[in-house]
Amino acid sequence: MKNELIKHSIDLFVEKGYSATSIKDIVDTLGVTKGSFYYHFTSKEELLMDIHLQYIDELLSRQKRIVETEKTSRDKLVKIVELVIRDIEKQGPIGRVYYREIRHLTPENAAIIRQKRGEFRDNIEQVMAEGIENGEFRKELQPKMITFAILGITNWSYQWFNPQGELSVGELADMYTDFILNGVLAEK
Amino acid sequence: MKNELIKHSIDLFVEKGYSATSIKDIVDTLGVTKGSFYYHFTSKEELLMDIHLQYIDELLSRQKRIVETEKTSRDKLVKIVELVIRDIEKQGPIGRVYYREIRHLTPENAAIIRQKRGEFRDNIEQVMAEGIENGEFRKELQPKMITFAILGITNWSYQWFNPQGELSVGELADMYTDFILNGVLAEK
Repeated sequence: MKNELIKHSIDLFVEKGYSATSIKDIVDTLGVTKGSFYYHFTSKEELLMDIHLQYIDELLSRQKRIVETEKTSRDKLVKIVELVIRDIEKQGPIGRVYYREIRHLTPENAAIIRQKRGEFRDNIEQVMAEGIENGEFRKELQPKMITFAILGITNWSYQWFNPQGELSVGELADMYTDFILNGVLAEK
Repeated sequence: MKNELIKHSIDLFVEKGYSATSIKDIVDTLGVTKGSFYYHFTSKEELLMDIHLQYIDELLSRQKRIVETEKTSRDKLVKIVELVIRDIEKQGPIGRVYYREIRHLTPENAAIIRQKRGEFRDNIEQVMAEGIENGEFRKELQPKMITFAILGITNWSYQWFNPQGELSVGELADMYTDFILNGVLAEK
Protein backbone atom coordinates (compact mmCIF):
# COMPACT_ATOMS: atom_id res chain seq x y z
CA MET A 1 0.00 0.00 0.00
CA LYS A 2 2.82 2.39 0.83
CA ASN A 3 4.30 2.02 -2.64
CA GLU A 4 0.86 2.41 -4.20
CA LEU A 5 0.33 5.64 -2.26
CA ILE A 6 3.70 6.91 -3.44
CA LYS A 7 3.04 5.95 -7.04
CA HIS A 8 -0.40 7.56 -7.25
CA SER A 9 0.64 10.69 -5.42
CA ILE A 10 3.52 11.17 -7.86
CA ASP A 11 1.04 11.07 -10.74
CA LEU A 12 -1.18 13.62 -8.99
CA PHE A 13 1.74 15.88 -8.11
CA VAL A 14 2.87 15.85 -11.74
CA GLU A 15 -0.62 16.65 -12.97
CA LYS A 16 -1.87 19.19 -10.41
CA GLY A 17 1.23 20.14 -8.47
CA TYR A 18 1.95 19.28 -4.85
CA SER A 19 0.12 22.26 -3.28
CA ALA A 20 -3.09 21.65 -5.17
CA THR A 21 -3.16 17.93 -4.35
CA SER A 22 -4.89 16.96 -1.09
CA ILE A 23 -4.50 13.76 0.89
CA LYS A 24 -8.16 13.16 0.02
CA ASP A 25 -7.28 13.33 -3.71
CA ILE A 26 -4.57 10.73 -3.16
CA VAL A 27 -6.68 8.25 -1.22
CA ASP A 28 -9.68 8.76 -3.54
CA THR A 29 -7.63 7.64 -6.57
CA LEU A 30 -6.87 4.42 -4.73
CA GLY A 31 -10.33 4.00 -3.24
CA VAL A 32 -8.98 3.77 0.31
CA THR A 33 -9.56 5.83 3.46
CA LYS A 34 -7.43 8.58 4.93
CA GLY A 35 -6.61 6.13 7.71
CA SER A 36 -4.56 4.08 5.25
CA PHE A 37 -2.59 7.16 4.38
CA TYR A 38 -1.89 8.10 7.98
CA TYR A 39 -0.86 4.55 8.76
CA HIS A 40 2.15 5.05 6.46
CA PHE A 41 2.82 8.80 6.60
CA THR A 42 2.34 11.42 9.29
CA SER A 43 1.73 14.10 6.65
CA LYS A 44 1.74 14.92 2.95
CA GLU A 45 5.17 16.45 3.47
CA GLU A 46 6.55 13.19 4.83
CA LEU A 47 5.32 11.46 1.69
CA LEU A 48 7.01 14.11 -0.47
CA MET A 49 10.24 13.61 1.49
CA ASP A 50 10.00 9.86 0.95
CA ILE A 51 9.72 10.42 -2.80
CA HIS A 52 12.75 12.69 -2.82
CA LEU A 53 14.89 10.42 -0.65
CA GLN A 54 14.11 7.22 -2.51
CA TYR A 55 14.98 8.87 -5.82
CA ILE A 56 18.26 10.53 -4.91
CA ASP A 57 19.55 7.64 -2.80
CA GLU A 58 19.17 5.22 -5.68
CA LEU A 59 20.88 7.60 -8.11
CA LEU A 60 23.76 8.14 -5.70
CA SER A 61 24.39 4.46 -5.16
CA ARG A 62 24.35 3.72 -8.89
CA GLN A 63 26.64 6.67 -9.56
CA LYS A 64 29.04 5.44 -6.88
CA ARG A 65 29.24 2.05 -8.56
CA ILE A 66 30.06 3.69 -11.91
CA VAL A 67 32.81 5.86 -10.48
CA GLU A 68 34.36 2.85 -8.72
CA THR A 69 34.05 0.51 -11.69
CA GLU A 70 34.93 2.54 -14.79
CA LYS A 71 38.59 3.20 -15.52
CA THR A 72 38.73 6.38 -17.65
CA SER A 73 37.18 9.79 -16.97
CA ARG A 74 35.50 9.53 -20.34
CA ASP A 75 33.79 6.27 -19.47
CA LYS A 76 32.75 7.53 -16.04
CA LEU A 77 31.16 10.58 -17.62
CA VAL A 78 29.43 8.57 -20.35
CA LYS A 79 28.00 6.05 -17.87
CA ILE A 80 26.70 8.76 -15.53
CA VAL A 81 24.97 10.61 -18.38
CA GLU A 82 23.50 7.30 -19.57
CA LEU A 83 22.32 6.52 -16.05
CA VAL A 84 20.33 9.74 -15.78
CA ILE A 85 18.93 9.70 -19.33
CA ARG A 86 17.97 6.02 -19.37
CA ASP A 87 16.23 6.52 -16.04
CA ILE A 88 13.64 8.75 -17.71
CA GLU A 89 11.89 5.62 -18.91
CA LYS A 90 11.23 4.32 -15.38
CA GLN A 91 11.54 7.50 -13.32
CA GLY A 92 10.21 10.25 -15.61
CA PRO A 93 7.26 11.34 -13.41
CA ILE A 94 9.20 11.06 -10.16
CA GLY A 95 11.95 13.17 -11.74
CA ARG A 96 9.51 15.92 -12.64
CA VAL A 97 8.14 16.06 -9.09
CA TYR A 98 11.66 15.94 -7.76
CA TYR A 99 12.88 18.99 -9.61
CA ARG A 100 9.77 21.04 -9.00
CA GLU A 101 8.49 20.45 -5.51
CA ILE A 102 11.55 20.59 -3.27
CA ARG A 103 10.42 23.99 -1.98
CA HIS A 104 7.49 22.32 -0.25
CA LEU A 105 9.70 20.25 2.03
CA THR A 106 10.40 21.50 5.54
CA PRO A 107 13.68 23.46 5.68
CA GLU A 108 15.37 20.56 7.50
CA ASN A 109 14.26 18.00 4.93
CA ALA A 110 15.07 20.28 2.01
CA ALA A 111 18.57 20.69 3.41
CA ILE A 112 19.06 16.92 3.51
CA ILE A 113 17.93 16.57 -0.12
CA ARG A 114 20.00 19.54 -1.29
CA GLN A 115 23.04 18.01 0.38
CA LYS A 116 22.51 14.73 -1.48
CA ARG A 117 21.88 16.47 -4.78
CA GLY A 118 25.07 18.41 -4.15
CA GLU A 119 26.90 15.12 -3.65
CA PHE A 120 25.67 13.80 -7.00
CA ARG A 121 26.83 17.02 -8.65
CA ASP A 122 30.18 17.01 -6.82
CA ASN A 123 30.87 13.49 -8.04
CA ILE A 124 30.43 14.60 -11.65
CA GLU A 125 32.56 17.66 -10.98
CA GLN A 126 35.29 15.39 -9.67
CA VAL A 127 35.15 13.22 -12.78
CA MET A 128 35.50 16.41 -14.85
CA ALA A 129 38.40 17.69 -12.74
CA GLU A 130 40.21 14.35 -12.99
CA GLY A 131 39.68 14.22 -16.73
CA ILE A 132 41.08 17.72 -17.18
CA GLU A 133 44.02 16.86 -14.90
CA ASN A 134 44.88 13.63 -16.73
CA GLY A 135 44.52 15.24 -20.17
CA GLU A 136 41.40 13.41 -21.33
CA PHE A 137 39.31 16.60 -21.25
CA ARG A 138 40.19 20.07 -22.54
CA LYS A 139 42.21 21.99 -20.00
CA GLU A 140 40.31 25.29 -20.43
CA LEU A 141 37.09 23.77 -19.05
CA GLN A 142 35.84 24.78 -15.61
CA PRO A 143 34.65 21.55 -13.94
CA LYS A 144 31.90 23.18 -11.92
CA MET A 145 30.26 25.08 -14.80
CA ILE A 146 30.51 22.17 -17.22
CA THR A 147 28.92 19.93 -14.61
CA PHE A 148 25.94 22.30 -14.43
CA ALA A 149 25.74 22.31 -18.24
CA ILE A 150 25.68 18.50 -18.30
CA LEU A 151 23.04 18.37 -15.58
CA GLY A 152 21.07 20.94 -17.54
CA ILE A 153 20.99 18.67 -20.56
CA THR A 154 20.01 15.59 -18.56
CA ASN A 155 17.59 17.23 -16.11
CA TRP A 156 15.78 19.15 -18.82
CA SER A 157 15.16 15.88 -20.65
CA TYR A 158 12.84 14.88 -17.81
CA GLN A 159 10.63 17.83 -18.72
CA TRP A 160 10.18 17.19 -22.41
CA PHE A 161 11.31 13.72 -23.47
CA ASN A 162 8.62 11.15 -24.18
CA PRO A 163 10.10 7.63 -24.01
CA GLN A 164 7.05 6.39 -25.96
CA GLY A 165 7.93 8.70 -28.87
CA GLU A 166 9.97 8.05 -32.01
CA LEU A 167 13.31 8.01 -30.15
CA SER A 168 14.22 5.55 -27.39
CA VAL A 169 15.98 6.58 -24.18
CA GLY A 170 18.99 4.62 -25.45
CA GLU A 171 19.16 6.64 -28.67
CA LEU A 172 18.79 9.90 -26.75
CA ALA A 173 21.55 8.84 -24.35
CA ASP A 174 23.87 8.03 -27.30
CA MET A 175 23.19 11.38 -28.93
CA TYR A 176 23.80 13.34 -25.76
CA THR A 177 26.94 11.51 -24.67
CA ASP A 178 28.30 12.12 -28.19
CA PHE A 179 27.43 15.84 -28.02
CA ILE A 180 28.91 16.20 -24.53
CA LEU A 181 32.07 14.27 -25.41
CA ASN A 182 32.62 16.50 -28.44
CA GLY A 183 32.27 19.45 -26.11
CA VAL A 184 34.78 18.20 -23.55
CA LEU A 185 37.28 15.74 -25.06
CA ALA A 186 40.81 17.03 -25.57
CA GLU A 187 41.59 14.92 -28.65
CA LYS A 188 39.21 14.88 -31.53
CA MET B 1 1.18 50.03 -10.01
CA LYS B 2 0.59 47.25 -12.55
CA ASN B 3 4.33 46.69 -12.97
CA GLU B 4 4.81 46.82 -9.20
CA LEU B 5 2.15 44.16 -8.76
CA ILE B 6 3.86 41.99 -11.36
CA LYS B 7 7.29 42.48 -9.83
CA HIS B 8 6.23 41.65 -6.28
CA SER B 9 4.11 38.72 -7.28
CA ILE B 10 7.04 37.21 -9.19
CA ASP B 11 9.12 37.37 -6.01
CA LEU B 12 6.34 35.69 -4.02
CA PHE B 13 5.76 33.02 -6.68
CA VAL B 14 9.49 32.23 -6.66
CA GLU B 15 9.57 32.02 -2.87
CA LYS B 16 6.28 30.25 -2.04
CA GLY B 17 5.07 28.98 -5.38
CA TYR B 18 2.02 30.23 -7.28
CA SER B 19 -0.58 28.02 -5.56
CA ALA B 20 0.50 28.99 -2.07
CA THR B 21 0.52 32.74 -2.86
CA SER B 22 -2.79 34.56 -2.36
CA ILE B 23 -3.84 37.89 -3.83
CA LYS B 24 -3.84 39.12 -0.22
CA ASP B 25 -0.15 38.15 0.08
CA ILE B 26 0.61 40.15 -3.05
CA VAL B 27 -1.23 43.33 -2.06
CA ASP B 28 0.06 43.09 1.54
CA THR B 29 3.69 43.24 0.34
CA LEU B 30 2.85 46.47 -1.45
CA GLY B 31 0.65 47.87 1.31
CA VAL B 32 -2.28 48.36 -1.08
CA THR B 33 -5.85 47.03 -1.14
CA LYS B 34 -7.29 44.15 -3.12
CA GLY B 35 -9.13 46.80 -5.13
CA SER B 36 -5.83 47.93 -6.65
CA PHE B 37 -5.19 44.38 -7.74
CA TYR B 38 -8.60 43.90 -9.34
CA TYR B 39 -8.29 47.22 -11.12
CA HIS B 40 -5.45 45.71 -13.17
CA PHE B 41 -6.22 41.98 -13.23
CA THR B 42 -9.45 40.00 -13.16
CA SER B 43 -7.70 37.11 -11.37
CA LYS B 44 -4.40 35.72 -10.13
CA GLU B 45 -4.33 33.60 -13.26
CA GLU B 46 -4.54 36.66 -15.50
CA LEU B 47 -1.52 38.07 -13.67
CA LEU B 48 0.37 34.81 -14.20
CA MET B 49 -0.53 34.91 -17.89
CA ASP B 50 0.75 38.50 -18.13
CA ILE B 51 4.08 37.41 -16.64
CA HIS B 52 4.39 34.56 -19.11
CA LEU B 53 3.41 36.63 -22.13
CA GLN B 54 5.66 39.57 -21.38
CA TYR B 55 8.63 37.26 -20.94
CA ILE B 56 8.27 35.08 -24.02
CA ASP B 57 7.26 37.94 -26.35
CA GLU B 58 10.41 39.88 -25.52
CA LEU B 59 12.60 36.82 -26.00
CA LEU B 60 10.98 36.06 -29.34
CA SER B 61 11.44 39.56 -30.71
CA ARG B 62 15.10 39.68 -29.68
CA GLN B 63 15.67 36.22 -31.15
CA LYS B 64 14.06 37.32 -34.41
CA ARG B 65 16.44 40.27 -34.65
CA ILE B 66 19.43 37.96 -34.13
CA VAL B 67 18.33 35.50 -36.80
CA GLU B 68 17.74 38.34 -39.28
CA THR B 69 20.98 40.18 -38.48
CA GLU B 70 23.67 37.51 -38.05
CA LYS B 71 25.16 35.94 -41.15
CA THR B 72 26.52 32.53 -40.14
CA SER B 73 24.73 29.71 -38.33
CA ARG B 74 27.52 29.76 -35.77
CA ASP B 75 26.96 33.43 -34.95
CA LYS B 76 23.19 33.00 -34.81
CA LEU B 77 23.60 30.14 -32.35
CA VAL B 78 26.15 32.01 -30.22
CA LYS B 79 23.98 35.15 -30.02
CA ILE B 80 20.86 33.22 -29.08
CA VAL B 81 22.68 31.36 -26.29
CA GLU B 82 24.12 34.66 -25.09
CA LEU B 83 20.67 36.25 -25.16
CA VAL B 84 19.20 33.63 -22.84
CA ILE B 85 22.19 33.39 -20.48
CA ARG B 86 22.78 37.14 -20.16
CA ASP B 87 19.08 37.59 -19.44
CA ILE B 88 19.48 35.73 -16.15
CA GLU B 89 20.83 38.93 -14.66
CA LYS B 90 17.63 40.88 -15.28
CA GLN B 91 15.08 38.09 -15.67
CA GLY B 92 16.29 35.39 -13.28
CA PRO B 93 13.21 35.34 -10.99
CA ILE B 94 10.72 35.69 -13.85
CA GLY B 95 12.48 32.80 -15.60
CA ARG B 96 12.07 30.55 -12.58
CA VAL B 97 8.36 31.29 -12.34
CA TYR B 98 8.03 30.83 -16.07
CA TYR B 99 9.43 27.32 -16.16
CA ARG B 100 7.59 26.14 -13.08
CA GLU B 101 4.10 27.56 -13.04
CA ILE B 102 2.79 27.12 -16.56
CA ARG B 103 0.53 24.31 -15.35
CA HIS B 104 -1.51 26.84 -13.36
CA LEU B 105 -2.61 28.71 -16.48
CA THR B 106 -6.00 27.93 -17.98
CA PRO B 107 -5.70 25.35 -20.78
CA GLU B 108 -6.34 28.10 -23.39
CA ASN B 109 -3.64 30.37 -21.99
CA ALA B 110 -1.19 27.52 -21.50
CA ALA B 111 -1.68 26.59 -25.15
CA ILE B 112 -0.81 30.14 -26.24
CA ILE B 113 2.37 30.13 -24.15
CA ARG B 114 3.36 26.63 -25.28
CA GLN B 115 2.92 27.71 -28.87
CA LYS B 116 5.24 30.69 -28.36
CA ARG B 117 7.81 28.61 -26.51
CA GLY B 118 7.63 26.14 -29.36
CA GLU B 119 8.34 29.00 -31.76
CA PHE B 120 11.46 29.99 -29.83
CA ARG B 121 12.61 26.38 -29.92
CA ASP B 122 11.77 25.94 -33.60
CA ASN B 123 13.87 28.98 -34.46
CA ILE B 124 16.91 27.41 -32.78
CA GLU B 125 16.16 24.12 -34.49
CA GLN B 126 16.13 25.92 -37.82
CA VAL B 127 19.51 27.53 -37.10
CA MET B 128 20.85 24.05 -36.30
CA ALA B 129 19.35 22.54 -39.45
CA GLU B 130 20.79 25.30 -41.63
CA GLY B 131 24.21 24.95 -40.01
CA ILE B 132 24.22 21.19 -40.63
CA GLU B 133 23.04 21.74 -44.19
CA ASN B 134 25.70 24.38 -44.99
CA GLY B 135 28.48 22.34 -43.39
CA GLU B 136 29.15 24.59 -40.39
CA PHE B 137 27.83 21.98 -37.95
CA ARG B 138 28.53 18.25 -37.80
CA LYS B 139 26.24 16.36 -40.13
CA GLU B 140 25.43 13.55 -37.68
CA LEU B 141 23.61 15.93 -35.32
CA GLN B 142 19.82 15.80 -35.01
CA PRO B 143 18.65 19.44 -34.93
CA LYS B 144 15.67 18.79 -32.67
CA MET B 145 17.53 16.86 -29.99
CA ILE B 146 20.51 19.21 -29.96
CA THR B 147 18.12 22.14 -29.61
CA PHE B 148 16.66 20.52 -26.48
CA ALA B 149 20.18 19.95 -25.14
CA ILE B 150 21.07 23.61 -25.68
CA LEU B 151 17.85 24.77 -24.05
CA GLY B 152 18.60 22.40 -21.17
CA ILE B 153 21.92 24.12 -20.57
CA THR B 154 20.46 27.61 -20.76
CA ASN B 155 17.17 26.97 -18.96
CA TRP B 156 18.82 25.08 -16.14
CA SER B 157 21.10 28.05 -15.52
CA TYR B 158 18.03 29.99 -14.37
CA GLN B 159 17.66 27.49 -11.52
CA TRP B 160 21.16 27.59 -10.10
CA PHE B 161 23.21 30.51 -11.42
CA ASN B 162 23.73 33.45 -9.08
CA PRO B 163 24.71 36.56 -11.10
CA GLN B 164 26.03 38.08 -7.85
CA GLY B 165 28.48 35.18 -7.44
CA GLU B 166 32.10 34.87 -8.53
CA LEU B 167 31.25 34.47 -12.22
CA SER B 168 29.43 37.09 -14.31
CA VAL B 169 26.66 36.25 -16.77
CA GLY B 170 29.07 37.27 -19.54
CA GLU B 171 31.69 34.76 -18.40
CA LEU B 172 29.07 32.03 -18.09
CA ALA B 173 27.79 32.83 -21.58
CA ASP B 174 31.34 32.62 -23.00
CA MET B 175 31.97 29.29 -21.32
CA TYR B 176 28.71 27.78 -22.54
CA THR B 177 28.91 29.04 -26.11
CA ASP B 178 32.43 27.58 -26.23
CA PHE B 179 31.23 24.22 -24.87
CA ILE B 180 28.27 24.12 -27.24
CA LEU B 181 30.34 25.14 -30.27
CA ASN B 182 32.85 22.38 -29.51
CA GLY B 183 29.92 20.00 -29.38
CA VAL B 184 28.46 21.07 -32.73
CA LEU B 185 31.08 22.63 -35.02
CA ALA B 186 32.20 20.53 -37.97
CA GLU B 187 35.77 21.85 -38.11
CA LYS B 188 37.82 21.89 -34.98
